[in-house]
Amino acid sequence: MTKKKILYVQTSGINTPQRLYSPFILAQTAIAMDIEPTLYFLGEGISVVIKGNAEKIKMGNFPSLKEVMEKTAEMGIKMLICQQSMQVFGQDIRPEDFVENSKVVGAATLNDLVLDADGTMWF
Amino acid sequence: MTKKKILYVQTSGINTPQRLYSPFILAQTAIAMDIEPTLYFLGEGISVVIKGNAEKIKMGNFPSLKEVMEKTAEMGIKMLICQQSMQVFGQDIRPEDFVENSKVVGAATLNDLVLDADGTMWF
Amino acid sequence: MTKKKILYVQTSGINTPQRLYSPFILAQTAIAMDIEPTLYFLGEGISVVIKGNAEKIKMGNFPSLKEVMEKTAEMGIKMLICQQSMQVFGQDIRPEDFVENSKVVGAATLNDLVLDADGTMWF
Repeated sequence: MTKKKILYVQTSGINTPQRLYSPFILAQTAIAMDIEPTLYFLGEGISVVIKGNAEKIKMGNFPSLKEVMEKTAEMGIKMLICQQSMQVFGQDIRPEDFVENSKVVGAATLNDLVLDADGTMWF
Repeated sequence: MTKKKILYVQTSGINTPQRLYSPFILAQTAIAMDIEPTLYFLGEGISVVIKGNAEKIKMGNFPSLKEVMEKTAEMGIKMLICQQSMQVFGQDIRPEDFVENSKVVGAATLNDLVLDADGTMWF
Repeated sequence: MTKKKILYVQTSGINTPQRLYSPFILAQTAIAMDIEPTLYFLGEGISVVIKGNAEKIKMGNFPSLKEVMEKTAEMGIKMLICQQSMQVFGQDIRPEDFVENSKVVGAATLNDLVLDADGTMWF
């Protein structure tokens, strides 16, 4: 039996830190539930996966967002970044500015992922 | 024939009152359409179901959010609250701080609800 | 074989211009992929389709939002507007205030569209 797939899409950026933990926590929980999670960063959400940003974020009783993100990568959860969103924010962001274990993909990929997923979540 | 299920997820809080009516109105409309609605409050969204907050919110031609919420509860629509979101906001929020007819559940529940629903909406 | 359908829902308004391009770009990409896209404007999102607003918005390397919206209309992509959201913002907005090629519909329509779509995206 193939695993169920959930796509977690982060559309919010580092100026709203209270919106950033949920997709990581839920994706880690998905692994424990034998669900296949994928994280996708879109619009301002791409700021979350720019090197050096997650270190600055820490909310409530949780560890820093960096620690949460690293655990996510260790669990083998894919982190995809919307190429077109880089254009929205101008030409200053380069692919090498993103954290390791992330991958830049195009808009067509998101359409495909949404159709392929058994569920999607939007943050 | 089993009813179709829609899950309405509120990720925004009382500092954006213009985002708060939609899930309640749509869930009430769902009942009239013989659809089974569930409301889920996540991240800042949990502020909406903290006692005393909905009373303060009133937009446009609509009644207060409290009235809309009470009608929703009377219709038997479930209101679920994300336990992990309480941790994001620190230790000050206790389960008894939430409105009646709501229930605190864990992250695994949201993954299950999203997979089980026939459609989800994110506010 | 019937086309797959994706519903793109804009819940953010012109005060967050960085959130406005994605649904249009993704919907245009959907056409190229033989997917049937529909755009839906809800809550503050209805400000995007009020005449005169998209002209003011231009981000990064993209053309103005107005140009992107016009191309979307030329491609035959439907733009639907939530009637109840007009009530949230008071009585000043009239149906004739919205851009051509858009259509005002009720809350029941959104529930139906979400259940009918093969995927939904929330911005």
